[in-house]
Amino acid sequence: MTTPPRPPLVVTYAEVRGATRALAAPLSEADCQVQSMPDASPIKWHLAHTTWFFETFVLERHERAFAPFHPAFRVLFNSYYNGIGEQHPRPQRGLVTRPGLAEVLAYREAVDRRMAVLLDRPHAAALAQLVTLGLHHEQQHQELMLTDVKHLLSCNPLAPAYASALPPPAQPVAAADASGWVEYGGGLVEIGHPGGDDAGFAFDNETPRHRHYLRPYALARRPVTQGDYEAFVADGGYADPRWWLAAGWDAVRTQRIEAPMYWRDGGALFTLHGLQARDPQAPAVHLSYYEAEAYARWWSAQHPGQPPARLPTEAEWEHAAAGATLAGANFVETGALHPRAPADGGALGAPRQLFGDVWEWTSSSYAPYPGYQAWEGAVGEYNAKFMVDQYVLRGGSCATPASHMRASYRNFFPAGTRWQFSGVRLARDLA
Amino acid sequence: MTTPPRPPLVVTYAEVRGATRALAAPLSEADCQVQSMPDASPIKWHLAHTTWFFETFVLERHERAFAPFHPAFRVLFNSYYNGIGEQHPRPQRGLVTRPGLAEVLAYREAVDRRMAVLLDRPHAAALAQLVTLGLHHEQQHQELMLTDVKHLLSCNPLAPAYASALPPPAQPVAAADASGWVEYGGGLVEIGHPGGDDAGFAFDNETPRHRHYLRPYALARRPVTQGDYEAFVADGGYADPRWWLAAGWDAVRTQRIEAPMYWRDGGALFTLHGLQARDPQAPAVHLSYYEAEAYARWWSAQHPGQPPARLPTEAEWEHAAAGATLAGANFVETGALHPRAPADGGALGAPRQLFGDVWEWTSSSYAPYPGYQAWEGAVGEYNAKFMVDQYVLRGGSCATPASHMRASYRNFFPAGTRWQFSGVRLARDLA
Amino acid sequence: MTTPPRPPLVVTYAEVRGATRALAAPLSEADCQVQSMPDASPIKWHLAHTTWFFETFVLERHERAFAPFHPAFRVLFNSYYNGIGEQHPRPQRGLVTRPGLAEVLAYREAVDRRMAVLLDRPHAAALAQLVTLGLHHEQQHQELMLTDVKHLLSCNPLAPAYASALPPPAQPVAAADASGWVEYGGGLVEIGHPGGDDAGFAFDNETPRHRHYLRPYALARRPVTQGDYEAFVADGGYADPRWWLAAGWDAVRTQRIEAPMYWRDGGALFTLHGLQARDPQAPAVHLSYYEAEAYARWWSAQHPGQPPARLPTEAEWEHAAAGATLAGANFVETGALHPRAPADGGALGAPRQLFGDVWEWTSSSYAPYPGYQAWEGAVGEYNAKFMVDQYVLRGGSCATPASHMRASYRNFFPAGTRWQFSGVRLARDLA
Amino acid sequence: MTTPPRPPLVVTYAEVRGATRALAAPLSEADCQVQSMPDASPIKWHLAHTTWFFETFVLERHERAFAPFHPAFRVLFNSYYNGIGEQHPRPQRGLVTRPGLAEVLAYREAVDRRMAVLLDRPHAAALAQLVTLGLHHEQQHQELMLTDVKHLLSCNPLAPAYASALPPPAQPVAAADASGWVEYGGGLVEIGHPGGDDAGFAFDNETPRHRHYLRPYALARRPVTQGDYEAFVADGGYADPRWWLAAGWDAVRTQRIEAPMYWRDGGALFTLHGLQARDPQAPAVHLSYYEAEAYARWWSAQHPGQPPARLPTEAEWEHAAAGATLAGANFVETGALHPRAPADGGALGAPRQLFGDVWEWTSSSYAPYPGYQAWEGAVGEYNAKFMVDQYVLRGGSCATPASHMRASYRNFFPAGTRWQFSGVRLARDLA
Repeated sequence: MTTPPRPPLVVTYAEVRGATRALAAPLSEADCQVQSMPDASPIKWHLAHTTWFFETFVLERHERAFAPFHPAFRVLFNSYYNGIGEQHPRPQRGLVTRPGLAEVLAYREAVDRRMAVLLDRPHAAALAQLVTLGLHHEQQHQELMLTDVKHLLSCNPLAPAYASALPPPAQPVAAADASGWVEYGGGLVEIGHPGGDDAGFAFDNETPRHRHYLRPYALARRPVTQGDYEAFVADGGYADPRWWLAAGWDAVRTQRIEAPMYWRDGGALFTLHGLQARDPQAPAVHLSYYEAEAYARWWSAQHPGQPPARLPTEAEWEHAAAGATLAGANFVETGALHPRAPADGGALGAPRQLFGDVWEWTSSSYAPYPGYQAWEGAVGEYNAKFMVDQYVLRGGSCATPASHMRASYRNFFPAGTRWQFSGVRLARDLA
Repeated sequence: MTTPPRPPLVVTYAEVRGATRALAAPLSEADCQVQSMPDASPIKWHLAHTTWFFETFVLERHERAFAPFHPAFRVLFNSYYNGIGEQHPRPQRGLVTRPGLAEVLAYREAVDRRMAVLLDRPHAAALAQLVTLGLHHEQQHQELMLTDVKHLLSCNPLAPAYASALPPPAQPVAAADASGWVEYGGGLVEIGHPGGDDAGFAFDNETPRHRHYLRPYALARRPVTQGDYEAFVADGGYADPRWWLAAGWDAVRTQRIEAPMYWRDGGALFTLHGLQARDPQAPAVHLSYYEAEAYARWWSAQHPGQPPARLPTEAEWEHAAAGATLAGANFVETGALHPRAPADGGALGAPRQLFGDVWEWTSSSYAPYPGYQAWEGAVGEYNAKFMVDQYVLRGGSCATPASHMRASYRNFFPAGTRWQFSGVRLARDLA
Repeated sequence: MTTPPRPPLVVTYAEVRGATRALAAPLSEADCQVQSMPDASPIKWHLAHTTWFFETFVLERHERAFAPFHPAFRVLFNSYYNGIGEQHPRPQRGLVTRPGLAEVLAYREAVDRRMAVLLDRPHAAALAQLVTLGLHHEQQHQELMLTDVKHLLSCNPLAPAYASALPPPAQPVAAADASGWVEYGGGLVEIGHPGGDDAGFAFDNETPRHRHYLRPYALARRPVTQGDYEAFVADGGYADPRWWLAAGWDAVRTQRIEAPMYWRDGGALFTLHGLQARDPQAPAVHLSYYEAEAYARWWSAQHPGQPPARLPTEAEWEHAAAGATLAGANFVETGALHPRAPADGGALGAPRQLFGDVWEWTSSSYAPYPGYQAWEGAVGEYNAKFMVDQYVLRGGSCATPASHMRASYRNFFPAGTRWQFSGVRLARDLA
Repeated sequence: MTTPPRPPLVVTYAEVRGATRALAAPLSEADCQVQSMPDASPIKWHLAHTTWFFETFVLERHERAFAPFHPAFRVLFNSYYNGIGEQHPRPQRGLVTRPGLAEVLAYREAVDRRMAVLLDRPHAAALAQLVTLGLHHEQQHQELMLTDVKHLLSCNPLAPAYASALPPPAQPVAAADASGWVEYGGGLVEIGHPGGDDAGFAFDNETPRHRHYLRPYALARRPVTQGDYEAFVADGGYADPRWWLAAGWDAVRTQRIEAPMYWRDGGALFTLHGLQARDPQAPAVHLSYYEAEAYARWWSAQHPGQPPARLPTEAEWEHAAAGATLAGANFVETGALHPRAPADGGALGAPRQLFGDVWEWTSSSYAPYPGYQAWEGAVGEYNAKFMVDQYVLRGGSCATPASHMRASYRNFFPAGTRWQFSGVRLARDLA
């Protein structure tokens, strides 16, 4: 079997850029304007910044007679690239009401037209690489657009929906228990993106591929579910310091956390489809690292005869995912926009839902791989300068584009993060 | 000469409500959505809350078969009336993107139609009083719309203008020096709104009219000007603790204040018309009480042979303003939307610009007048519960509707407030 | 009857300085070191700063061949006199463990010896005036030492006592109800310290004596008692926004206030004698302005047939106190160190406990009197620069030295202040 | 050669406990009382808490007829053991002035007497293990006493010394350049404490010993020196975002950091001996992880022809230190109480100063080793619950007792920590 030929970059470019625009389609100018917390950005800013990326990193370098769309945008829509220059302060992104949404959309169209001209012509590999990076960058912002607008709408006491109705699952949902453990023998394994022409795109943080020694371990066959997690909450989990890391317990008390983000009274959950009943079979979501870790300790105490559960390391996760398929995963294309109970099937003995549904916290702090070299130039700021005080998540979520995901992909957020589609799959040592 | 008959209330209602709508006309949905700081509110919220006032205080009580426009609005657009019930938290007003601007404008139109029905019919005096209160309430929010949107636009590095061009002054601007002092003999005077059928509307906080003993005093013939204040800044006024109240000095250092709000480098000023050159003859504006008071101390030190200057008390101000005319004042109707140099003329020896241009800080804390009784019911919360930790300002500003102002009018803000159109007129004792 | 001759200043100096030292006697070096909150100061700092006052304002100017005790003390123990120079930051006073307590006491003794030399010789009136100011300054710090150490000890879960046992009252305590109102006719009265040789010391803020117009009013015969206030608490007063100024309600919710400071469960109260039962006849104490004002509104609602109660103005209070005696008041000399139930007696129809027991909040913001002139030089910073954002309290407390008090005395604190011995006496208008 | 027999535990107990007491000897009660920031604790608290550890974990379990010294101490001096019960809030440790220092010293003596009785008798291995843990716990607090009192004294503008004079180095200081790199071949190595009877004490976090795969790497022969770091500062390192992790740059700007903690103008440094000149040959100290990492990036840019420098991983560090000797290291026993230039000698080609002088930041986040099991019971809280959001430091410092250190020892602090004796040794990959 041969891999189908990749479509021309100009086609992919149009698809990815169009997907971004489609995500904003259900939103008003007001929805696109507001920044609901410093960690989130306005939708309008996402629309502009992803465009800025192509204008600054591609057009400015490769376009003859380059002229900026608007001179002020260079600073206004620079996220964090000191190599490019000053940046508008992040917490004040939501205060910029002008340019308005229409002008930002015009900015997108103007840059897209100019990009199409470049891409339609023969072009250097370096340009193609930058454009590919820009498209993966854009896909990351597609996911952030969904998590950020979800946070914004959740602040509204009317609990408005982003999308009108939860689509039916593509296939019947399994009633059967998918629990259990899948075992791995460990040993000296290879981790990281393999590189090479056929391997597709990877961020610099996935390289170099390197050896890592693993002890024998097991992964849970599925992520922790809403039902699982409800038992923890019902057992008083948020009031018992035994289960919590000290920093987690501090967060719980200081922020008065009593349940995962977006839980509402009466078994309800705020989703991109508005308030919905929680599905006990669907993966638990919007957990912080602290909540994930506390659940693992609590679970271990409930199963005294078994090896204690813990979070997997990212190497354990990647080793297990190396042979798994992304097909059928609940990525953004399903339209569910929410984790859901697994469909029937899946190879017996293989972990389910490794990809899609929820990002899975690992116990690995976000650090450079042995031998890591950041990309040269301003794009070297893309990943390297964030390699501290964060933890790695794996596998993508219901808000991730399918073409954006792979086994070596490393997402990262601070341990207290809750507004992403983050969940947890338990791991444990083999005797 | 007889006072012209007042227009029917239904006409006044339409005029005032239309003026609010007109103020929002130059703004996009994004401009109307954002709350740039907790002290400010979104324009959309102002549009909705002023409507809520009529719906809640008038329609709900006086309309047969009253049904709310939207049940959630009762909480969502309640500002601070505990007598009505719960309120959406003030700092989160800007997070409510739905209802959108169009729906809020539809809310206004629906309530206006129903109000017109009520007002077209014979109606009780109590209803007329409530409507009149609602219209004065609406005029207060008209001024806040301008100060709030000015703050929002000032946060934008592009310094966008609310209104396109500064209109020419209605009459030639005086080149002559208007400085000097106007003297008053003091004694036992009457302060407060006189009441009675002919005296027009007053808030409860302007009553009762009462006796107050004044020592002989003088008021400056004009407010402190930009040019006056620039001399203070140039003399290092913001770096010298001698001039400042302890709380003011603390604010200067903690907030790193070096000049009045909206001053920009190179003699520029951010205005509702975008960046403009500062006019040395125009009143200094956007001063806090602390800045006003510091200027008075500094001025006194520059004039060692003279009685020291200070802020006037509100009784001194009102006594001086009792006979002054509002005609020709720079209120919102001039379209200047900024304080400006005085026009020629004015009675010789009388203070100029008492009304309009800038609110004038007084040294009087906002407190109940002797014998004060708050209005009954929920409207009693309008003024009474704010009578602490604030200072009284007098005279209205370039953002105040002319029909909203009178000599007994008491505005009030905390001493650190800078985003209002606030300035200062000096006073001093007579020997 | 003639006034007894005043003792020589050198004798008064020794007495006042000795009283300060005696207040610190029950305390360990650790007790004297710690600053329990930014508003409070360490006892050691009080001991040093009051000494600094004499060294800086008296010895430095009047001593031949002046040399400082320690050059660094000029900055280290300067409270807020910009006219003297830099100051060690107030919130960091407690971090200065060296000089230790012994060295600070040696500083006191050295300055006292040098002061005795100066005062034993013939000296100018200007020196005597400065020394007298220094002694009144010292007495203010005596009261602060008690309120600051009370706050510190209250933070200790062991609830230690400053002084071992509550002394018995000097005279039998009245069982009878002392409630009721005392009426005043008002009119044009004189307020402020009379000045002149016989009138004794006054701060600049008590001058000049000036005319003030008062409407007829009444004062409660006694301050609000613990029993009175308990009824307010028991009625849910801290959970009902109707009673509170907006700023007070904000404080109650933000700081989660449910009762006056130092109340403990089970009817107990933390005092300088450790935990004690609350005496329902003793004045309520450690109330903020907000709590005092809320009580007045609540009381008015409980007495619908009567004129509403409110806080008195400072002019009303002073007018009533002008003829009252300080004899028998519960000042610091009683050793009670806590407000107590009134003793029997007192002139029929006269207000009780105007002096001593608790400082009484007035509705008057702290502002300059008409014609006020601050003292010249650095001592002008003593009062003038604090005349904003504070409210006046009158009458002294159980922690005030008797010789420090008079009818014209103006104390002042921000409205949220709770750690002072502050209470409230109700007032109301006469029809 | 045989290992000398270990002294009886009762002797070691007396030595370690005596060392703690000796560290407090130069301090006044005031010095021992104050908590200069929430991260630090009062010396008196350290004296009490280490005693509480033996009382609670040893006496309470092993003493017949146990009675607490003071019932309140169980809560008052519990640091963070939820398994024991409630704790006095950490930021309020400095507010507890009673018990005073004398009573806390009496508490120490009483517990020591009772411990001596227990240890003099034959006792179970479990008891000996708990006592040994308690002594290592005490040694950790010995180091914290020095870093905490250093911070306190640094807040005093008089810059007082903890100890009077810097002792001369035990051996001549090398003038020669000790720079250069030591290379390691990597491969599958064993990391962690070996365990077993002869291996001595280890914390649970050093176990289990496990395999780890290392690529070839080099370590700098010595830590970064003051002179090295001065070049970074002089080159504008704190003003250039290129060198900094995003979180580090944020800290630099928010906290206005311009140099390492305790640097003073004019080449001075605040030390436990007061202000001293910086020694360019001594290791740079009081660096945060961010500062260490920024230095590595800057260094790499200054050496463009070489492999880039980075922080070592903890496995790289431990592998290199496995064969190194602790003899001659600058631990607390030298009395230097400050890192110093290396003495002459040391094996050619071997890294110097791995032990003592400064803790060396590693790039490894503090995480459980593969197969880690926390101790059972409340002592399981000792390490496990802190395994998040912190980074590992290795090798001990000039404030660490020599008998407390070993190659497998893992210290850990958040990345922004600056008040510990922390420095950095560079590492890099081999081609």
